[in-house]
Amino acid sequence: LARRPTNIPGEFKLIARLCAGLTMSRRTLLGPGDDCAILARPRHAQLFTIDSMVEGVHFKLVWSPPAVLGSRALEVNLSDIAAMGGVPTACTVNLGIRRGLDAKFFDRLYAGLRARAKSAGVDIVGGNVTRAERLSITVALLGEVPAAALRRDTAHPGDEIFVTGTFGDAAAGWRVLDGRIRARGAASKFLVDRFLSPVARLRAGARLARLRPAPAAIDVSDGLLQDLGHICERSQVGALLDAGAVPLSPAYRAVMGDDRSLALGGGDDYELLFCLAPGRDPRALSRSLGIRVTRIGRITRGRGIKTIGARVPAVAGFDQLEARG
Amino acid sequence: LARRPTNIPGEFKLIARLCAGLTMSRRTLLGPGDDCAILARPRHAQLFTIDSMVEGVHFKLVWSPPAVLGSRALEVNLSDIAAMGGVPTACTVNLGIRRGLDAKFFDRLYAGLRARAKSAGVDIVGGNVTRAERLSITVALLGEVPAAALRRDTAHPGDEIFVTGTFGDAAAGWRVLDGRIRARGAASKFLVDRFLSPVARLRAGARLARLRPAPAAIDVSDGLLQDLGHICERSQVGALLDAGAVPLSPAYRAVMGDDRSLALGGGDDYELLFCLAPGRDPRALSRSLGIRVTRIGRITRGRGIKTIGARVPAVAGFDQLEARG
Repeated sequence: LARRPTNIPGEFKLIARLCAGLTMSRRTLLGPGDDCAILARPRHAQLFTIDSMVEGVHFKLVWSPPAVLGSRALEVNLSDIAAMGGVPTACTVNLGIRRGLDAKFFDRLYAGLRARAKSAGVDIVGGNVTRAERLSITVALLGEVPAAALRRDTAHPGDEIFVTGTFGDAAAGWRVLDGRIRARGAASKFLVDRFLSPVARLRAGARLARLRPAPAAIDVSDGLLQDLGHICERSQVGALLDAGAVPLSPAYRAVMGDDRSLALGGGDDYELLFCLAPGRDPRALSRSLGIRVTRIGRITRGRGIKTIGARVPAVAGFDQLEARG
Repeated sequence: LARRPTNIPGEFKLIARLCAGLTMSRRTLLGPGDDCAILARPRHAQLFTIDSMVEGVHFKLVWSPPAVLGSRALEVNLSDIAAMGGVPTACTVNLGIRRGLDAKFFDRLYAGLRARAKSAGVDIVGGNVTRAERLSITVALLGEVPAAALRRDTAHPGDEIFVTGTFGDAAAGWRVLDGRIRARGAASKFLVDRFLSPVARLRAGARLARLRPAPAAIDVSDGLLQDLGHICERSQVGALLDAGAVPLSPAYRAVMGDDRSLALGGGDDYELLFCLAPGRDPRALSRSLGIRVTRIGRITRGRGIKTIGARVPAVAGFDQLEARG
């Protein structure tokens, strides 16, 4: 402990600098600069989530400009709001800062965060800065749910399982950045972008929240099998997954061929997985949600996920016990 | 990056374990285990704050049982709610975990956090766990303000400056733990406890929020001079501080004698500083707020803090430019 416990020289000034030029919605009665932010009483029930990105665990600085990092730190939280069918409203940000990063770096990181907050309608209402061994960005995000929230615990046997977008791209992109997978040109750029700049499916989530009954849903951040497992665990059901139906991008196929391990267990997809009573047309859903929707299986009685349609390799982070139908 | 980006083996199980046995108020419609918590629409305007404790920066593990650490991580956030005159309601917790700490450690840490949350009426509604180089505990806390919020930007020239409690104890206690200061017996225990187990002045803050006009206030976490400086900066006023009037505990005097440096700039006090139109009796205030209240100066026109009454040493983290009246 090099100095007295909580103080960082210039911490207050760094926060003031980072918060300079922030514009607030009318929902925010008092923004950064006091002990707490003050928010007007919301009109609906609220959502509350927290997520963190740590240097060396979730990213390397050489992989992306700091602005991309700042934007991504908010996006992974926006994805949690999307998965509940909500509208994001306000966030606070905790920065763990380390030596070797200057004010310009944080200006850029915050510029990315601010820009994404603005486009998502989110007020950055407070911040905290602490010294740390590694750079970390922790965002606590509030949202509102005008309609019924999408939950993990409302899946029923017989429901069909759908997903937005394609899977495994981000996990492949991360491995491209890390030098474990070779990819070239457009495929490389696509996969890396999918990792660095995920897009929370806010519109799709909000549309899903208008359906009755509200579908069970989750955002796939830990990997498709693992997050489907969370739905099953919370809803006390099982699932039959057609692994061959899991949507893959051309870039993923170009790099991974028939190996679906990253699509099934790679993580960082930030797509939505949701469950609907049978009979929905994926094409109609795609039009309504504004993104490609694919049916990949159905909810079953009992426990565990049974897979058909493709070989399912052992996947890092995927609990094999849950995989047995 | 030893493994794929976001996943931690057993992360989900650790969160589930830590959240086991949590009881929720009726305000919380859905607690931990989904993408977000769902909170009932609050009855009043809301407060929102975030704060973090990092191993090696704010604490050492050898200094305290993990339960004390967990409790303290919430307390420093409660102090921000107290400083606004609010009532804390719900929090989310982000744990940065490192190798070498087992599930039992986190059980104990969370037990401390849970116990304090319960006594403060706070629901722990969500959690996230990420790997890190050092242990860190980040808490994002919501509150409500039934009355007018206490702000930093409402101090007026002529206002008298008051504080709760005594100053410098925690900073001295930290130095006792770190071996920089020698203290014995009851004095040592008192000072160390004041550092490890601060008490957010929630009751005092709530009482202050009933006064009209609502006093300007701040919680003193960065050090008395620095936090008074924050009031001055936000309110665009100056201050005359009677350094000799700053209240000291017998333990502080026993260890530090006449050296007021830690009382004025040491930090981690988590006492309230507030400003009231002249004429208030500190004894009546003490009775009303349930804690000793001392008048330590007054707000002035102009800028900067001028000190009288005792020698003011150069204090770590205290901006000397602001100290000149």
